Amino acid sequence: MKKTVAVLGAGSWGLTLAELINNNGNTVTVWEFNPEAAQRLERDRSLSFFSQLKLSGDIAVTSDIASVCAGKDFILVAVPSHALRSAMQAVKRSGADTSKTIFISATKGIENDSLKRMSQIIADEIPDAARRIVVLSGPTHAEEVQAKMPTAATLASINGKASEAAREILSTSYFRLYTHNDVAGVETGAALKNILAIAAGLCDGIGLGDNTKAALVTRGLREIIKLGVTMGGQPTTFFGLTGLGDLIVTCFSRHSRNRALGERLGRGENASEAEKQMVMVAEGVKTAKSAYDLAKKYQLDLPIMNEVYCVLFEAKDPRAAVQELMAREAKPESMPGLEGLVL
Amino acid sequence: MKKTVAVLGAGSWGLTLAELINNNGNTVTVWEFNPEAAQRLERDRSLSFFSQLKLSGDIAVTSDIASVCAGKDFILVAVPSHALRSAMQAVKRSGADTSKTIFISATKGIENDSLKRMSQIIADEIPDAARRIVVLSGPTHAEEVQAKMPTAATLASINGKASEAAREILSTSYFRLYTHNDVAGVETGAALKNILAIAAGLCDGIGLGDNTKAALVTRGLREIIKLGVTMGGQPTTFFGLTGLGDLIVTCFSRHSRNRALGERLGRGENASEAEKQMVMVAEGVKTAKSAYDLAKKYQLDLPIMNEVYCVLFEAKDPRAAVQELMAREAKPESMPGLEGLVL
Repeated sequence: MKKTVAVLGAGSWGLTLAELINNNGNTVTVWEFNPEAAQRLERDRSLSFFSQLKLSGDIAVTSDIASVCAGKDFILVAVPSHALRSAMQAVKRSGADTSKTIFISATKGIENDSLKRMSQIIADEIPDAARRIVVLSGPTHAEEVQAKMPTAATLASINGKASEAAREILSTSYFRLYTHNDVAGVETGAALKNILAIAAGLCDGIGLGDNTKAALVTRGLREIIKLGVTMGGQPTTFFGLTGLGDLIVTCFSRHSRNRALGERLGRGENASEAEKQMVMVAEGVKTAKSAYDLAKKYQLDLPIMNEVYCVLFEAKDPRAAVQELMAREAKPESMPGLEGLVL
Repeated sequence: MKKTVAVLGAGSWGLTLAELINNNGNTVTVWEFNPEAAQRLERDRSLSFFSQLKLSGDIAVTSDIASVCAGKDFILVAVPSHALRSAMQAVKRSGADTSKTIFISATKGIENDSLKRMSQIIADEIPDAARRIVVLSGPTHAEEVQAKMPTAATLASINGKASEAAREILSTSYFRLYTHNDVAGVETGAALKNILAIAAGLCDGIGLGDNTKAALVTRGLREIIKLGVTMGGQPTTFFGLTGLGDLIVTCFSRHSRNRALGERLGRGENASEAEKQMVMVAEGVKTAKSAYDLAKKYQLDLPIMNEVYCVLFEAKDPRAAVQELMAREAKPESMPGLEGLVL
């Protein structure tokens, strides 16, 4: 049955999902924060930095949040993580009726200062929606989903019915969706992997090889698990599509913005210069700040994430950072958080 | 202290390790099965397909197994997996004294028919060495170790002292070694990942994206764990350098022969043609056969490995194989073998 869907955020991922949901026979409206950008997109049906996507004629684009959100079956959120809270506040303030709306979060990050996950921010601002939030996550570069390349992703919710409903509007022959109940694990994995992608990019920029990156990703996954489990995730979640899968694609794909940012830094650009050059948001930068604060809060040793933080925020030389990681004392391999494994 | 080391097998990995051990101040002799190839290498100090490596003048190359192995502190085995048993039989037959020798296996595979791991074959043929076998494994493309790019790998043995001794001759500032005691887990992970690399290559050859590969690798790791645990490995081992780390590098690196073979098949070459084009051995082909037999023996469902087998040995169309994998019914993500996880 035809559903009504608001997509908040007109970046490459928001538009890819808007188009996909529309193609699935639903009615989609896109909200873009900036009125001029909304008008431009309504007219051009395309983004300059993602021109391969042409928005279907029946998808309206507007900057009026009240009309976009009122009475919708779904609100899919695909704004940058630092803009999520203000977007939710705008929804709330607009007075739009969202009393039956399922919120789908396609945003990956951990908010600075509050150190909260995206679904927690939605629940903070729209408390009655707390049991109607679904998280969409996984190895899903927009460029490839837009090109209909086979992709698998995860829908996580404490509410299985909400996940199933979200699957109805989102799944296609090339976009396979698996359900999951570990929201904390899915969201922390999705957010933290972007820090590792910056580290992988540093290796690329310095000119190190795939052996180095593989070691870094393997050991980095342990850091993700350490912090993610502390934040309430289940250890096994991090070995699924939203943890390992997303980590791999972000660290190795040419499409990854976070990896690309790291590569620039590795080549010697300074952090603020490199960030300015990026058209799209590299979520890993803000998440690195949050992870640094979380490591302090929970007193965790997260060497790779810490080195990325130092490169980004303390102008540490990337070569020195990678060298320090490699020079750490060799010791028996262990799997933090999994030592007590009983089968 | 200076050690005496025989390296069996003069491929790119054998020579890279020979050179590294020699640079570490040890005395190295290389054994090459084929007398003509041995003479050529002794004269040219280089391989046509790996010309970046120039063998140091003090490393002797010979096809005389008795002189190479007699009384050595270490015998490092880097022959193709299908040649390991006959090499060990040759060592035995030569009468060389190996009563105090530590055997280091750098060979990855599972023998056809016997379905045994490499260290089991060494112990089969030289039973008194059973407690002096160390397995070297991890994400270690020879090209990058030869170029001294930072690399981390694992030494696995039931005998911690043997691992420590092997570390002494092998470790350098750019080649970090971690010790491990799960020999079965390290060896099965190392062998089975080559099958997944062929699958990743199929995706590349067909023109599918990184999303698809990430999903395949993530789900493939579960198959490795399922079979690896059945074969005696500890589940957590597969998330370390020798499992996940090696899997990633093999599936994404341009240096991987198994991935390259899969890419040829994905582009439409037939299996025997594609194999003939390869200068170096793609271990995944033989291992796919062994895994197919193991899946039957233990009645395990290993869909990705099974499709690779069908493409390699039953001329199945790669597109049909990948399509079938993607079309499998979507269901909640689970982590086979880890359901009972207790922390």
